[in-house]
Amino acid sequence: MSAPNRATLWGRILADEFAKGGLDAVCIAPGSRSTPLTVAFAEHPEIDVYSQLDERSAAYFALGRARRTGEPTALVCTSGTAAANFHPAVIEAAQARVPLLILTADRPPELRDSGANQTVDQTKLYGDAVRWYAELPEPEADERKVRSLRTTAARALSETLGVEPGPVHLNCPFRKPLEPIAVPGDVPDSFVQTTAGRGRDGPFVDTGGGTRTLADDDHRRLQNALTAADRPLIVAGPADPATLADLEPAAVADLADRLGAPVLADPLSGLRFGPHVGGADDGDDDSRTIYGGYDTYVPELPSPDVVLRFGASPTSKPLRNWLRDADARQFLVDPAGAWREATFTATDLLAADHGTVVDELLETVTAAEAGSDDAWRARFDAAERRHWAIRDAALTPDALESAPFEGAILASVVSNAPDPATVFVSNSMPIRDADRFARPRTAAVTMLANRGASGIDGIASTALGAGSTTDEPLVLVTGDLAFYHDSNGLLAVDRCDVDATIVLLDNDGGGIFHELPIEAFDPPFTDQFKTPHGVGFDALADAYGLEFDRVAPPAFADAYRRSLERAGTQVLAVEFDSAASHRRRDALETRVEDALDGFESDRD
Amino acid sequence: MSAPNRATLWGRILADEFAKGGLDAVCIAPGSRSTPLTVAFAEHPEIDVYSQLDERSAAYFALGRARRTGEPTALVCTSGTAAANFHPAVIEAAQARVPLLILTADRPPELRDSGANQTVDQTKLYGDAVRWYAELPEPEADERKVRSLRTTAARALSETLGVEPGPVHLNCPFRKPLEPIAVPGDVPDSFVQTTAGRGRDGPFVDTGGGTRTLADDDHRRLQNALTAADRPLIVAGPADPATLADLEPAAVADLADRLGAPVLADPLSGLRFGPHVGGADDGDDDSRTIYGGYDTYVPELPSPDVVLRFGASPTSKPLRNWLRDADARQFLVDPAGAWREATFTATDLLAADHGTVVDELLETVTAAEAGSDDAWRARFDAAERRHWAIRDAALTPDALESAPFEGAILASVVSNAPDPATVFVSNSMPIRDADRFARPRTAAVTMLANRGASGIDGIASTALGAGSTTDEPLVLVTGDLAFYHDSNGLLAVDRCDVDATIVLLDNDGGGIFHELPIEAFDPPFTDQFKTPHGVGFDALADAYGLEFDRVAPPAFADAYRRSLERAGTQVLAVEFDSAASHRRRDALETRVEDALDGFESDRD
Repeated sequence: MSAPNRATLWGRILADEFAKGGLDAVCIAPGSRSTPLTVAFAEHPEIDVYSQLDERSAAYFALGRARRTGEPTALVCTSGTAAANFHPAVIEAAQARVPLLILTADRPPELRDSGANQTVDQTKLYGDAVRWYAELPEPEADERKVRSLRTTAARALSETLGVEPGPVHLNCPFRKPLEPIAVPGDVPDSFVQTTAGRGRDGPFVDTGGGTRTLADDDHRRLQNALTAADRPLIVAGPADPATLADLEPAAVADLADRLGAPVLADPLSGLRFGPHVGGADDGDDDSRTIYGGYDTYVPELPSPDVVLRFGASPTSKPLRNWLRDADARQFLVDPAGAWREATFTATDLLAADHGTVVDELLETVTAAEAGSDDAWRARFDAAERRHWAIRDAALTPDALESAPFEGAILASVVSNAPDPATVFVSNSMPIRDADRFARPRTAAVTMLANRGASGIDGIASTALGAGSTTDEPLVLVTGDLAFYHDSNGLLAVDRCDVDATIVLLDNDGGGIFHELPIEAFDPPFTDQFKTPHGVGFDALADAYGLEFDRVAPPAFADAYRRSLERAGTQVLAVEFDSAASHRRRDALETRVEDALDGFESDRD
Repeated sequence: MSAPNRATLWGRILADEFAKGGLDAVCIAPGSRSTPLTVAFAEHPEIDVYSQLDERSAAYFALGRARRTGEPTALVCTSGTAAANFHPAVIEAAQARVPLLILTADRPPELRDSGANQTVDQTKLYGDAVRWYAELPEPEADERKVRSLRTTAARALSETLGVEPGPVHLNCPFRKPLEPIAVPGDVPDSFVQTTAGRGRDGPFVDTGGGTRTLADDDHRRLQNALTAADRPLIVAGPADPATLADLEPAAVADLADRLGAPVLADPLSGLRFGPHVGGADDGDDDSRTIYGGYDTYVPELPSPDVVLRFGASPTSKPLRNWLRDADARQFLVDPAGAWREATFTATDLLAADHGTVVDELLETVTAAEAGSDDAWRARFDAAERRHWAIRDAALTPDALESAPFEGAILASVVSNAPDPATVFVSNSMPIRDADRFARPRTAAVTMLANRGASGIDGIASTALGAGSTTDEPLVLVTGDLAFYHDSNGLLAVDRCDVDATIVLLDNDGGGIFHELPIEAFDPPFTDQFKTPHGVGFDALADAYGLEFDRVAPPAFADAYRRSLERAGTQVLAVEFDSAASHRRRDALETRVEDALDGFESDRD
């Protein structure tokens, strides 16, 4: 590791150490103070560099990439407010457990709080939102400092994938010259030899995290409860690839079959879509174990008596409330042992890896032991069938002509998605509509959303970041406010060479507010909540070189399929009246409820 | 103060108390959790509500308004990453001493760290960047809580204008119902009477900050040094209206005259433009006291022996270095007693209000006492005259035809600005060019920039926020990266009804990097630093309903004057080759230096 000066040396050692630890990508927002990092990453053969101009979008792009891969992505910015622009994505990464390595360049200590230009207090800038924070030592060709630097770099990368994956922040002070200019004597030739590493491949410190398994007593307790249950249930909440790495969807389906337990799979659980789903996609086959229509029907069904839960709180509020009101034993499994359960219904918190718990149950639970009521799963089968039949009737071209609503688009996006595909769904209404209207499929659809903090910021960037890591077709479904909010992120289509089909559900403002009581108070409803804005989305797309088409709801499925077959990025904008959509969602829900009422009373 | 429920009660008390304390505007980003605040502000007759959809832009808009007025502006957002989007503007407000009252809605305590949706840790979210942080009590019709709430509200507003003005953060937990829905018994009728306040106008607690004056000994020390100086100098660095409220520019000019001290006025000092400037605008009159061309000529002049400094570190690096290398007594006056002086040249730090120091010196210093060398100011006069003559020669239409550069536009923007006008200048190159090429004028040009942290984020929003408070014409000068970075902020033109002339200096990327040594290292220079992006700015302007014209440099002055005469917002885009501009700036500087070399050697 030779270098013309100490700042360059620092940058090169960091890039080298991160690469040895497995880092393969960095997203860089241009700036001067970060020059040693930028130059080192750009010259490193094993690290892909993505360049983004808005730090907020850069951070979400890196988040999306790390979210899709489950592997750390690094982020670089210069000093000042640039670093604060990372903050929203850092919070999302913290809450959703996405491995993000944040490198903020800083002025050296003597210039801080001195009135120096573009110098702000970056110490612990993200507060408790990071898993680890460290200030790097000032660059210097000193043997012990370099050992510390390599150790800190190895540790930082490792901490992003610790027991609870998440963001790690290194603040990196640099003094001029920042460029790779020769400074005689700054890095003596003799120094080059000693910093070459340890003479082996891999990082300076190899780390091993191991597996978190249940204690025998806890395992027996869980097994006994599940096998003794009359109405066992598995609920899979949102969880990202980094969290799910060890979980085999097929193993969950096996366990569910053996227990006679339906699996209620959140669209973000990694379990709603894939070959393990079982049953034909047309839904008339009762061999399924994975259920997706529960949002409308669980309130009509009897309560479970034992629940096994993975992941974060489910997106579906009716499901959360139904679980809250059940008088059930509820086991929450979480690898980090976190208490993420806002309805406070869990009776047992088990700190163990998802996959390990499932595999160990499969080793010890036999179908013969499991005593669940046959009628229990049959009820879910019937409800699921009715739910999708009624939904399908609402999605015919004729129905969409007379009564269009956004949920139909989400249904179509998923049912017409190629196999495999990555589908990123915005917060607010789109993810709720995906939850209700995206039917389980055997295709490998990876659905992602920023559900850690559920913001509508950074949506385009996160989606494009996710798409940058895979050759699968990428679909983004976004509302108009989220599309506007991160329109800067669209620059990544060109700069980072990502193709996408962007489905823009345009109801000119905050459609979700029609679902809230504030709708009845106007003013201030229209001006302060609904906020019609009139942004010219066709022009906005044009500014970033994207194709833009307005599509009527009945024509959407065809336009969508055509877009998926084409290269380049197309925006398919579908206009809706969100007040009318709200009424249509309600009507659809009532139809499902009515159908189930009859079904349930027939049984009684 | 009656209310249908406790959340509404809380919102109304807060709005009432803030209004009584003098708050007259709030910028609100839509959201659900903040409904009690939004509804209360929207219904309050004395508070103007600005609605913005992107929280980052909202925060900068509020910052701009507070920056221009020197009075607090409030900011409201919902819970989650929304609040983190405020962070960049909060840092700018902290560093530039802009009074900003940040109200973040939050989930109630029982939902925090529970996995509840859209719930993040907002406690001290902005770290040390706020002057005060408080968590509001949970809403309840309780007499003591209400007294606490009103006191906290009065205090928060007052703290934004404390000894060091700046941002204050109140985190505001609300529980459903958030809307003004009747909840019987929640706010008893009997409670209404007791919360009416104190039966007098004004806030619940009136606050008085007083004036910070020098101790007699310190005053004498300063006076003696200034009057004994051969080469006294006054340097006015960047300072905002909130900081300058008590400073009369004419008083500074008087003092300077009496001392025989040139005033080197940063374009952001509040002193470079205005009737106090003296001398005709054509610069051939030596009655000036305010000097603006120092960036190019101070290195050629002898050093001062006593310096009186106001404001933050000057924008001009040659000036900072010249002051650093002078063997001078340097008095830094700062109302907050902050040590904002990154070249570490100050010998005396005086914690006192600017205006008070100047007024007291005027009471005790007589011109007869002051013993400055006559030749001292004559040197500045000659240098200033030569600087502007050479600059003028570079700005003729012919010169601009053959050798255009961005500095010419900044010169024209200021010299052709109406009287009065507000001119907001982006960071990076534009403010540096304004510093070098914007000549002192007697017109009331208020030049502003985000010079606290010197980010290129939030530029359009800050400018439009500043413009929203005044009937003066508003001009924004921005580079293309800054224009892209806050293109979301352009929505305020329509939503907040602000007209502006936006001068877009388009060199397709980061022109400033041509001024740095990294230019010589390509790659990575072009891809990672210069970053040509190809954003279609005409389409971008169209998305927000703005007129857009491309103007050649020689035609700029005419197009600019026409735009200022018209209603609506026009974007005047002027394209430059930043590498060529860099060489032209250097050549101009050399011409000024050569001219002064001759002049100075004639004197020796």
